[in-house]
Amino acid sequence: MRMGARLDGLDWIAADWGTSRLRVWAMAADGRVLAGSASDRGMGQLDRAGFGPALLDIVAPWLGGGASDPVPVLVCGMAGARTGWVEAPYRAVPCTPLDPARATRPDGADPRLPVLILPGLSQSSPPDVMRGEETQLAGLIAARPGWEGVVCMPGTHSKWARVRGGRVTAFRTFMTGELYALLARQSVLRLSVAGAEPDPAAFDEAAASGAGLAELFSVRAAGLLGDVPAAAAAGRLSGLLVGAEIAAAESFRGGAPLALVGAPALTSLYARALAARGGGGDPPLILDGSDMALAGLAAARAALTKVPA
Amino acid sequence: MRMGARLDGLDWIAADWGTSRLRVWAMAADGRVLAGSASDRGMGQLDRAGFGPALLDIVAPWLGGGASDPVPVLVCGMAGARTGWVEAPYRAVPCTPLDPARATRPDGADPRLPVLILPGLSQSSPPDVMRGEETQLAGLIAARPGWEGVVCMPGTHSKWARVRGGRVTAFRTFMTGELYALLARQSVLRLSVAGAEPDPAAFDEAAASGAGLAELFSVRAAGLLGDVPAAAAAGRLSGLLVGAEIAAAESFRGGAPLALVGAPALTSLYARALAARGGGGDPPLILDGSDMALAGLAAARAALTKVPA
Repeated sequence: MRMGARLDGLDWIAADWGTSRLRVWAMAADGRVLAGSASDRGMGQLDRAGFGPALLDIVAPWLGGGASDPVPVLVCGMAGARTGWVEAPYRAVPCTPLDPARATRPDGADPRLPVLILPGLSQSSPPDVMRGEETQLAGLIAARPGWEGVVCMPGTHSKWARVRGGRVTAFRTFMTGELYALLARQSVLRLSVAGAEPDPAAFDEAAASGAGLAELFSVRAAGLLGDVPAAAAAGRLSGLLVGAEIAAAESFRGGAPLALVGAPALTSLYARALAARGGGGDPPLILDGSDMALAGLAAARAALTKVPA
Repeated sequence: MRMGARLDGLDWIAADWGTSRLRVWAMAADGRVLAGSASDRGMGQLDRAGFGPALLDIVAPWLGGGASDPVPVLVCGMAGARTGWVEAPYRAVPCTPLDPARATRPDGADPRLPVLILPGLSQSSPPDVMRGEETQLAGLIAARPGWEGVVCMPGTHSKWARVRGGRVTAFRTFMTGELYALLARQSVLRLSVAGAEPDPAAFDEAAASGAGLAELFSVRAAGLLGDVPAAAAAGRLSGLLVGAEIAAAESFRGGAPLALVGAPALTSLYARALAARGGGGDPPLILDGSDMALAGLAAARAALTKVPA
């Protein structure tokens, strides 16, 4: 077996371990990112015994083969779910997005990789939970100290969170991405959407209409009454659902400044829907979700290593 | 083969042929129902060549074995869809719900059973279609001459229609039943709903809340944060979706008198949701959907056999 050298300057490893993906970053003590990697070995693909080996596989090139100090790994996301590596109990809002002292250590980690999994957030009324997005919120607070408003994190399950005084005071989950996948692939609308990528103009028009649930079936009916390209049907369906989410979130937002945090393809889609609906005040602050997750993990690492005064 | 006798007084046959079910009634010339039957050989289970034999199978006991006059069959519903027995082209609203002169004769009917399929209705903006519900609307107009208002016909695809001066002026389709089935069986919420029948108290509370899309995920989150019986999760999901439909239909209804037409289990559910939301004015008129389909088919038959003055 060939023994490689440890990545120069490696101090700790940051990991965002979601349902469908695992992202890792090799971090220097001064906060620089030395390397990054990703795989599709998300929590949904793994049983409990699979997490340790999956982590070791992806970071092994950074560790080197010789004897050396352990490298701490800080993990956020679904790895901390009940059906994940180890359950990291939720913290109830209102609270700061992170409390690294409440992180949980799983069994079965390689001795070279002491792992801590950060807890998610819960809310009692209405009942709601998040795992991973709280770390993006911590990243936003670290990146923009003093920012207050509502953060929309679009995705399979979009999260909207109120941030005030460095704390998360309330949040809501919208199942928009999952609804789109179910309707586009398994409902009667699949006959019109036919697996096409959404057309942007049809998306904008549908999002602006605010018709939402009242016109979902029009995606199919339009195709029965005339020729509608599948991409237009897909765009219309996506626009109706994103528009319905934004409308349903309006009272939660309550006119507060908005930040969009997520994958650029999704945040730009939501920014377009917000603009198409109009009357939204200032344009939203847009930040990359992966950058914010890493910034949040770095903030947690800094808190854990802070020398007590 | 045993030759039975023709059902005494049989003049014509009424058929409501939906996607999942076929219902038939043996009718006397004076409008009395002599017999009725139903099967699960809906349009969704049949290819084009299967409709004639399926119809003959279910009405054969009424025809008798000897030589005798043909028995006309009047059909409404999805049998007239493009993928049904024969396409009965839509009629565009605003229009009366029925025009029997626009019925379509399919190929392949048994010579003893001359079949006419009634057309559905279409709307250009927003694009929408219905097949079968227009006959229930005709039945309501026949049963309650002069009634005007908005008719809600709950189901897999709920239809809301404005009726004025004996005509349908506009309508909207809501995919509520299909959304429930997809979310309860195939989304992450299936883990909480677990195939249970909806609990009525949880339904009422969720319908009254008006939370709709903003709290769908609470169905799952509540179960992660505490013990929630599956029936309560199912009731909450159903109440959120029906409540969202009623809220989204509010501007379409515009305060008009409401009639609920459908299966009693569904119309009573919607009546409860309307009452739970409150402020709805007079209680809705509630009529059985199957009765109204038959009344509409009888009205169409009467129009076809009317002796010109």
